[in-house]
Amino acid sequence: MRKVGVIMGSDSDLPKVEKCIEELKSLNIPFEVHVYSAHRTPDEAIAFAKNAKAKGFGVIISAAGKAAHLGGVLAANTILPVIGIPIKSSSLEGVDALLSTVQMPPGIPVASVAIDGGQNAAILAAEIIAVSDEELEKRLIKKREEAKLSVLEKNKKVEEMFNRGE
Amino acid sequence: MRKVGVIMGSDSDLPKVEKCIEELKSLNIPFEVHVYSAHRTPDEAIAFAKNAKAKGFGVIISAAGKAAHLGGVLAANTILPVIGIPIKSSSLEGVDALLSTVQMPPGIPVASVAIDGGQNAAILAAEIIAVSDEELEKRLIKKREEAKLSVLEKNKKVEEMFNRGE
Amino acid sequence: MRKVGVIMGSDSDLPKVEKCIEELKSLNIPFEVHVYSAHRTPDEAIAFAKNAKAKGFGVIISAAGKAAHLGGVLAANTILPVIGIPIKSSSLEGVDALLSTVQMPPGIPVASVAIDGGQNAAILAAEIIAVSDEELEKRLIKKREEAKLSVLEKNKKVEEMFNRGE
Amino acid sequence: MRKVGVIMGSDSDLPKVEKCIEELKSLNIPFEVHVYSAHRTPDEAIAFAKNAKAKGFGVIISAAGKAAHLGGVLAANTILPVIGIPIKSSSLEGVDALLSTVQMPPGIPVASVAIDGGQNAAILAAEIIAVSDEELEKRLIKKREEAKLSVLEKNKKVEEMFNRGE
Amino acid sequence: MRKVGVIMGSDSDLPKVEKCIEELKSLNIPFEVHVYSAHRTPDEAIAFAKNAKAKGFGVIISAAGKAAHLGGVLAANTILPVIGIPIKSSSLEGVDALLSTVQMPPGIPVASVAIDGGQNAAILAAEIIAVSDEELEKRLIKKREEAKLSVLEKNKKVEEMFNRGE
Amino acid sequence: MRKVGVIMGSDSDLPKVEKCIEELKSLNIPFEVHVYSAHRTPDEAIAFAKNAKAKGFGVIISAAGKAAHLGGVLAANTILPVIGIPIKSSSLEGVDALLSTVQMPPGIPVASVAIDGGQNAAILAAEIIAVSDEELEKRLIKKREEAKLSVLEKNKKVEEMFNRGE
Amino acid sequence: MRKVGVIMGSDSDLPKVEKCIEELKSLNIPFEVHVYSAHRTPDEAIAFAKNAKAKGFGVIISAAGKAAHLGGVLAANTILPVIGIPIKSSSLEGVDALLSTVQMPPGIPVASVAIDGGQNAAILAAEIIAVSDEELEKRLIKKREEAKLSVLEKNKKVEEMFNRGE
Amino acid sequence: MRKVGVIMGSDSDLPKVEKCIEELKSLNIPFEVHVYSAHRTPDEAIAFAKNAKAKGFGVIISAAGKAAHLGGVLAANTILPVIGIPIKSSSLEGVDALLSTVQMPPGIPVASVAIDGGQNAAILAAEIIAVSDEELEKRLIKKREEAKLSVLEKNKKVEEMFNRGE
Repeated sequence: MRKVGVIMGSDSDLPKVEKCIEELKSLNIPFEVHVYSAHRTPDEAIAFAKNAKAKGFGVIISAAGKAAHLGGVLAANTILPVIGIPIKSSSLEGVDALLSTVQMPPGIPVASVAIDGGQNAAILAAEIIAVSDEELEKRLIKKREEAKLSVLEKNKKVEEMFNRGE
Repeated sequence: MRKVGVIMGSDSDLPKVEKCIEELKSLNIPFEVHVYSAHRTPDEAIAFAKNAKAKGFGVIISAAGKAAHLGGVLAANTILPVIGIPIKSSSLEGVDALLSTVQMPPGIPVASVAIDGGQNAAILAAEIIAVSDEELEKRLIKKREEAKLSVLEKNKKVEEMFNRGE
Repeated sequence: MRKVGVIMGSDSDLPKVEKCIEELKSLNIPFEVHVYSAHRTPDEAIAFAKNAKAKGFGVIISAAGKAAHLGGVLAANTILPVIGIPIKSSSLEGVDALLSTVQMPPGIPVASVAIDGGQNAAILAAEIIAVSDEELEKRLIKKREEAKLSVLEKNKKVEEMFNRGE
Repeated sequence: MRKVGVIMGSDSDLPKVEKCIEELKSLNIPFEVHVYSAHRTPDEAIAFAKNAKAKGFGVIISAAGKAAHLGGVLAANTILPVIGIPIKSSSLEGVDALLSTVQMPPGIPVASVAIDGGQNAAILAAEIIAVSDEELEKRLIKKREEAKLSVLEKNKKVEEMFNRGE
Repeated sequence: MRKVGVIMGSDSDLPKVEKCIEELKSLNIPFEVHVYSAHRTPDEAIAFAKNAKAKGFGVIISAAGKAAHLGGVLAANTILPVIGIPIKSSSLEGVDALLSTVQMPPGIPVASVAIDGGQNAAILAAEIIAVSDEELEKRLIKKREEAKLSVLEKNKKVEEMFNRGE
Repeated sequence: MRKVGVIMGSDSDLPKVEKCIEELKSLNIPFEVHVYSAHRTPDEAIAFAKNAKAKGFGVIISAAGKAAHLGGVLAANTILPVIGIPIKSSSLEGVDALLSTVQMPPGIPVASVAIDGGQNAAILAAEIIAVSDEELEKRLIKKREEAKLSVLEKNKKVEEMFNRGE
Repeated sequence: MRKVGVIMGSDSDLPKVEKCIEELKSLNIPFEVHVYSAHRTPDEAIAFAKNAKAKGFGVIISAAGKAAHLGGVLAANTILPVIGIPIKSSSLEGVDALLSTVQMPPGIPVASVAIDGGQNAAILAAEIIAVSDEELEKRLIKKREEAKLSVLEKNKKVEEMFNRGE
Repeated sequence: MRKVGVIMGSDSDLPKVEKCIEELKSLNIPFEVHVYSAHRTPDEAIAFAKNAKAKGFGVIISAAGKAAHLGGVLAANTILPVIGIPIKSSSLEGVDALLSTVQMPPGIPVASVAIDGGQNAAILAAEIIAVSDEELEKRLIKKREEAKLSVLEKNKKVEEMFNRGE
């Protein structure tokens, strides 16, 4: 199966990226994690993107805060799908990272997920790989089913808490 | 090759969706276009999403404005990757559609592109399909090369306009 | 009396929904509480909306955060009035939930109250039912009177604290 | 049937209120239209709200721009449900009117619809009255059906335009 | 000297209003403090505004959060200058209160100070009264001089901390 | 009577300042108009503020766009009340001018009116002068009465247009 | 004198960049203009930045809209000062470009000027070069003097228009 | 070497300015720190700016929150490059300071760095001085190299943590 590359712009993003990594693990998807800054290590970030396809990657996930250029820098150097996780930083509630990630100019898309949306980045990566991988597709369907059951169980508890008199 | 489903929430979104369709055509990707409103025709939207994989679709593109729920409704009913185009409407500069599209809760991602980013939605869909399609990958690489040459040509013109005296 | 259905998209919304439930109780309005996610349990959410009128509901209250589609999904499947409570989540100060709730397209309204406005959702539901229920109308008028007296009492305390020298 | 009172803060809001009036007409709901400014004619606005129930009104719709206090002023003087239409004015894209309308403090709700959402205000008013009016309920269901058919027709045209080769 | 009326919409605003009261005291300006809600005690708020001139008030200060209508309601019922303090509440960083206070329609101004700007509201009130009160003018000039000296003293400390080596 | 000084930061603000001037004329208030830029002619702006009281001014109105520092620069150099009109410029819908005007730090208030709120700046200036000028107070009361009558007249027309069948 | 490099991300930015070029010309500063996209021609953009110092450049000006990464990409590859002009594009009023330009992470600054602030970018570049160039410093001082005189002249016209009766 | 002047509008900004001072120290750049408020000590702020060039300064750094006029006031009185650090204050997430700093009108630029971006302000100042100072240029290049190595080291740790199984 094609690997997922998880690149964060700073190791301070790790706490939010861990949800992404856990989800990839739980979906049994091979992955690699790297810290490459678009601004402090541009050569390494670019080299990773340029070689990603050849090295067996199928999707790249980028996590960055503030003027989050990492997703764009990676996307400019590969035609693999690049998913961007805007990271909420110390000001502006993550709006800066969101707009820097999603408002890409025509020609070079970055697929943005929600602010701090590490888990969904992993699921989106899985959905992309699953387009041509029936085993992974099944795991995703099973995950959905489990998520549904988990909500229904919580519903039951809430119903018992409040609707007793019906 | 797997088809791309392009769903718009209202036919008034068509002018902005056309850039998406043109790009899909120019990349020679099979596609279907539909108008399904998440709110006025929820059953049709849901049915499309539920059957999309079986009908040969590989990616779904959703275009919607205002409280743009269409991407979320489609994504909730398929494990195919869903790409959302937030459409700028008559107020709020497209912020409403952007946040309604990108801020999906954990479990059900929508891959958001820029506001009115129809062309990038098509390219992102192509990148996703190209993960397992080498011919399409080549076309994408060629497209990138052409885009680069087009910029370089414009650069030449601008250089001639302003840098003559150097 | 027609019941009020209180649907939250996640049980993590419960602390904010509880103010709504307390207000319904104190107004002696029958209600039911459920956890139905627009995205993880869409079928259950839709089924609830479709059957709500027949099951004796008169108003539906929806509480959801982030890309809060729950109100729209419920409203698309019933002609009962749907009230949306945008829930402030971990980023963006609740703006995402507010715009996803209030900016509904023509044809399918959701009545939005303030961010985290659980109490007002309950009062609005009561006002709607009271249009044809004189007993409830009286309780609402009494509530208003009590709220007024409570403000006047606080005014007295503040006046005593600061205006003694007059 | 209980009447709907449509109050606008300025006659300059009329072009946007007309969509509301047309929808009320097409739903065959009795209504009255008035121009009462919360700030320039507060007494008239308050008197209207105080007498509305006795004069046969069941719902009040308020349309105002900028620091849109009209909805709050009306709601403070009646226990009828008050629906607020935030009107987009010459700056700020309607955000000022939206927040001034929807962010009501606990105790006095205003049911906000979308910015310039005149049509939805009328439909919401109809849904509220229909809670105890089966004839109006039927008309609302028919309206929904017509809206659905209109989308499906547009879908057909778009499908013919783009999907011919399938 | 004309009195300043300080009206807050809720006693929960008191911690932020206290800075206003302290400043009025320190400027030796007579004042009264009241809690009048624009929505829960509209009659009291309006009565205060209508009688304020006759009762010896020269300026009214209004403090309110969320959809802060209090300033507008007071201003609509007096031709005394009304100063609005937008109070930051539990969401939106005070933007709602700011826009609800400052974006008043033509004809009825509210003089807005900064979010949570209680101290400046008091100083502005003093400046207004000082237009025709030379004693107060002198106290304001002295205050300015003291503020200047306080900054210069802090400057000295900072200079000593960092510029020793010069 | 004390004069009102109307200072604009650029002559391009004149179209929006004219509403302010007309209102001052119609209220029969003496005034002076000047173009002083806080950044291009800081000395002139400061000199005006420093001498304003002595030259017979009672209030200063400042109109500026973008990073609208003019109000703050004037206020820092006078203890006369300074009213700021945030001018909407070519981007950001006037938010930049609004925040630069209203968010003044403790000690130096600027009384902000609405974005492009020239007319209200004039009325607020009049209200300030009227605190100690009974003739002007009467004119303001008369103006209010006229504004009320104008709304009631428009109300009549709208009522005739829509409420005929009652 | 060191040259100024003016890089725009797209030739569509030219109309707004022209103000920058005119100002550089009028200050008699040598410059070069290029179109290098951070995403479509990343290699050319990076090569320009890496070689800029050696080729005689002293300052780089970057103009880009939407997710404006160009400034960051250039700054990551040079230690020359990089000035960013955020370009207002078809949505979001330029907020996206502003935040993508200014919110740079620690280590790699971009000096942001106002949205569409081409002229100020040129002046800032001139100020930077003038730190070690007395001739240019004189031209900048003269420019300031001219700007001041131009404002004073406009002031005169406005004074004549409005203050005649004094 | 020309000195850097670091001016903060209030000593409460010191914790955020310290990162700036540390960076200047570590780059071995001479500097002075002062507390001059644009509003409470305008004369001192202006005098500093007017004399800065003559006193050996090459760059001025300004740190201010809320309606951050300090950068503009300094820039209006010098042709030295002025760098603005917008300080996040108690509300609005620093948006007020950012817009008040960056949205300067044509003629008088302020070079804005990120909200609370003290470190980058120092680096930008260093880059400006380094345009004509080869020793400082070398230190900046070395700093960049160190920053790169630090990221690569963190990358190594993260790779060891997550990529062991490759």
